[in-house]
Amino acid sequence: MKSYRKELWFEVPGRRAFLNITPQVEDALRESGVIEGLVLANAMHITASVFINDDERGLHHDYEVWLEKLAPHEPVASYHHNRTGEDNADAHMKRQVMGREVVVAISSGRLDFGPWEQIFYGEFDGGHRKRVLIKIIGE
Amino acid sequence: MKSYRKELWFEVPGRRAFLNITPQVEDALRESGVIEGLVLANAMHITASVFINDDERGLHHDYEVWLEKLAPHEPVASYHHNRTGEDNADAHMKRQVMGREVVVAISSGRLDFGPWEQIFYGEFDGGHRKRVLIKIIGE
Amino acid sequence: MKSYRKELWFEVPGRRAFLNITPQVEDALRESGVIEGLVLANAMHITASVFINDDERGLHHDYEVWLEKLAPHEPVASYHHNRTGEDNADAHMKRQVMGREVVVAISSGRLDFGPWEQIFYGEFDGGHRKRVLIKIIGE
Repeated sequence: MKSYRKELWFEVPGRRAFLNITPQVEDALRESGVIEGLVLANAMHITASVFINDDERGLHHDYEVWLEKLAPHEPVASYHHNRTGEDNADAHMKRQVMGREVVVAISSGRLDFGPWEQIFYGEFDGGHRKRVLIKIIGE
Repeated sequence: MKSYRKELWFEVPGRRAFLNITPQVEDALRESGVIEGLVLANAMHITASVFINDDERGLHHDYEVWLEKLAPHEPVASYHHNRTGEDNADAHMKRQVMGREVVVAISSGRLDFGPWEQIFYGEFDGGHRKRVLIKIIGE
Repeated sequence: MKSYRKELWFEVPGRRAFLNITPQVEDALRESGVIEGLVLANAMHITASVFINDDERGLHHDYEVWLEKLAPHEPVASYHHNRTGEDNADAHMKRQVMGREVVVAISSGRLDFGPWEQIFYGEFDGGHRKRVLIKIIGE
């Protein structure tokens, strides 16, 4: 069994953003030499997500509006977590809706994807250097 | 390490449905010959889910009502994504709540499940031929 | 390829709770002898979650309030599932938001975590003996 590990680093200037990281995951897969196996890609921070969906600007706008409705940033003082000096309680909720991680099949040396699947880093509390972990196992 | 890959195809006639795919995943596991390992089952389309819950008709009704409340289909024009000519923006949201994929342990050649766990394909934008990927790795 | 399996048992006295199970997962990892690989930790019951987030009391309070708003327990009779004699339909929904499982990378014999990642068992329908499955594969 082969295994391979790589970190991707991000610093999103605003509070929230969605970044397509599919090319970086494909790079890691090539570097691993794995032909059949699994890729795990996960946010290493608890106010960010890794998820799979469509690379369509309108949809990303809709996600932003929808997540803000499900878990509003304001009023900041409505969250007990923010009494610790943080203002990011909403980000911990948004991340649960969108998920921490994806597991993707590797078949014949490629990400085994349907026609529109793309991997995104979802940032919900930007302005900090944060990481995604890629772990690949297989043969 | 063994690996095995299989696609399941679906065409749901209505807009939304939940289909129990546990027997098909069990078939794939038998075909793989894997005794100890992991099964990944994921929707290959971004308006569908694979998830694990109860095979109870009342619960599926409740999920339908609840998801429609969290991410309503109408008004279609309220979503920027639908300006591309689609009417399925809500399906991209429902799929995030229910999840893209499940990873299930394989122990002694069987899906290592608790008493009520069953695997479902969740369709949120039917009327198209769509796929689930099953990828099995182990020994 | 090595594999290792362990069950964790819980009986939460109240209806809902979040329990940090990171030490038990670390114990299982040590017992497995796996140095490079993946850990799957999943709820074996469909009204409970395994998820990764912060071990901060205020945040757990906020999750409790937020999940109750997204999927209220009352009125119990509003859910068709509860016509089966259950009163836990809301728990099936809360579990979907928080997720069934996590997959964590194992690198150099350790859980490959960012600075604040901790693994939790989320109980949404307590008062019963319930299990988490830990499955480890790797080398």
